[in-house]
Amino acid sequence: MIPTIQWSGKKVLMIDQRKIPAKLEWFSCRGYKDVIRGIKKMVIRGAPAIGVAAAMGLALGAASIRVKSYARFRKSFKRMAGEMSKARPTAVNLRWAVERMCLIVDSMADQPVDIIKNVLRQESENILEEDIDINRRIGQHGQKLIKSNVTILTHCNAGALATGGYGTALGVIRAAHEEGKNIAVIADETRPWLQGLRLTSFELMKDRIPVRVIADNAAGSLMRQARIDVVVTGADRIASNGDVANKIGTYQVAVLARENSIPFYVAAPLSTIDMTIKNGDMIPVEHRTPKEISHFNARLVGPKGVKALNPAFDITPAKYVTAIITEKGVIKPPYVSGMKKLFK
Amino acid sequence: MIPTIQWSGKKVLMIDQRKIPAKLEWFSCRGYKDVIRGIKKMVIRGAPAIGVAAAMGLALGAASIRVKSYARFRKSFKRMAGEMSKARPTAVNLRWAVERMCLIVDSMADQPVDIIKNVLRQESENILEEDIDINRRIGQHGQKLIKSNVTILTHCNAGALATGGYGTALGVIRAAHEEGKNIAVIADETRPWLQGLRLTSFELMKDRIPVRVIADNAAGSLMRQARIDVVVTGADRIASNGDVANKIGTYQVAVLARENSIPFYVAAPLSTIDMTIKNGDMIPVEHRTPKEISHFNARLVGPKGVKALNPAFDITPAKYVTAIITEKGVIKPPYVSGMKKLFK
Repeated sequence: MIPTIQWSGKKVLMIDQRKIPAKLEWFSCRGYKDVIRGIKKMVIRGAPAIGVAAAMGLALGAASIRVKSYARFRKSFKRMAGEMSKARPTAVNLRWAVERMCLIVDSMADQPVDIIKNVLRQESENILEEDIDINRRIGQHGQKLIKSNVTILTHCNAGALATGGYGTALGVIRAAHEEGKNIAVIADETRPWLQGLRLTSFELMKDRIPVRVIADNAAGSLMRQARIDVVVTGADRIASNGDVANKIGTYQVAVLARENSIPFYVAAPLSTIDMTIKNGDMIPVEHRTPKEISHFNARLVGPKGVKALNPAFDITPAKYVTAIITEKGVIKPPYVSGMKKLFK
Repeated sequence: MIPTIQWSGKKVLMIDQRKIPAKLEWFSCRGYKDVIRGIKKMVIRGAPAIGVAAAMGLALGAASIRVKSYARFRKSFKRMAGEMSKARPTAVNLRWAVERMCLIVDSMADQPVDIIKNVLRQESENILEEDIDINRRIGQHGQKLIKSNVTILTHCNAGALATGGYGTALGVIRAAHEEGKNIAVIADETRPWLQGLRLTSFELMKDRIPVRVIADNAAGSLMRQARIDVVVTGADRIASNGDVANKIGTYQVAVLARENSIPFYVAAPLSTIDMTIKNGDMIPVEHRTPKEISHFNARLVGPKGVKALNPAFDITPAKYVTAIITEKGVIKPPYVSGMKKLFK
């Protein structure tokens, strides 16, 4: 697979996901503000990938701070970290990565600034490598839940492109495929941004895993016709009670899966779980520009002046989630106790 | 409103719904084959509108039959009627209109062919006028179910453009608005063809009824947040047990409405009810070209060679339908007996 994000000398390169599959172009970040712009504009997206990007962005930012005093370095770094945290509100991995980078700065008060800068860069590389490793472990745990000769529905893109590599939901699918299981994937196209049509199909076709794309409207009907056996999605944030924030439309898929007695699995690293919040309704849901609905490729499709609502995420209550697949294993209900155990 | 379809001298003019709202263009039909093409290509769509188009198309076809013998006229007409019946498979109004036109031919064996041709043209005009009148009656019955200060979700376009005029689901909404009720509409954009974004918003904006468009993915989440009070859709065919075939995605909306204790109403004329079939799973569901999913405006959006599934309709079992609104009144469960009473 094409790397989602990588260091190239003193720059961070992101594959520009707005342009896939029409073009494979790199978006080059020379400073942390470029990274923030890349996250906001969805050059890079997917909760774990955003976490990696935030870490790399802060390493870029740290490198640009031209002071020798630790105190002044720390102050500048914390300002950048604050900005980075706000790039997008829903995925908690962003904040998780920022906090991890801040901890390093806080723990190195006795070190020269140049050393801290090096450690920050190294840490951002560690976060990337760990993320890929975590995804492979999620895949290993998750594939045990996937039988052979099944059709799997996935929503949005929780693949290599949404992570450091390999993917969470698509990691489970890849691992099942690597185990030799005969599987086929149905990908929700995932309006408005079409991550399913553009990214998930692109990844799976490259891996020669059979995939067909559907309008999001068709998922329920296919479930009712018993043409879908299992659902696997990623997550942008999971509350301590197991409620899941994920791409808009996930809640619908989960309700329809339960209505049709189909298991609904969520695959995500521990960095996506937010133990500080009690339930999903406390998760901030980003609203993006209505133009994502009314326009296509910057061209108006609806009537002039048409109004649109564009929530980017929704909350799926834990009661619809059959299990959560993490790098430490599979958690089943009741989630409140299961989560606590996981973080011990 | 712009007329959906009308006679203009010896031609039938349809507003080209593929181009709304970007352009308002007329698609001109000189013969019955033009009408079949217009129905297949979705120049005109919506079950009642297709019924009107089929009737007008057969009047055009009849006019073109250059014979004096009744027997030969009838034979040619029946061949055209057979072709017309197959233009699209799901909406039963098409077959209903064709049968109504055939009955006229069958009942006029003792009349000169030229007289029959005139009566067929007059009948097609009657069907158009009746349809508008029926929609107004559906609106009157349906608006009683709509309280003031509510937000109504609708899927696809069951408006003036889907009918002779006024609309079925949008007829209910229009009638509630005309009664002075304070209502707002949320329109599912309705992928892949975007009837909601392009047509429903266009109609409602012209009538100054507040409307906002959403990705189909957002409907469930808005229901869960209690931001939708009632759902009204149209139908393409209703089985004798109350199962409803309608635009793909309707089933999902119905399941989510029930899950969130929101009433789900279907508005349709009696000509949409097919008493010859026992349940919805006997309704043929049209599958359209996968290009409607993979392409936008003839341009590929997904990866080259991407596969897609594109069912155009789905079946909503009667158990999810709170009531069916017809020109003869509102039917509530149990539907089997309610429907029988309606047709007595």
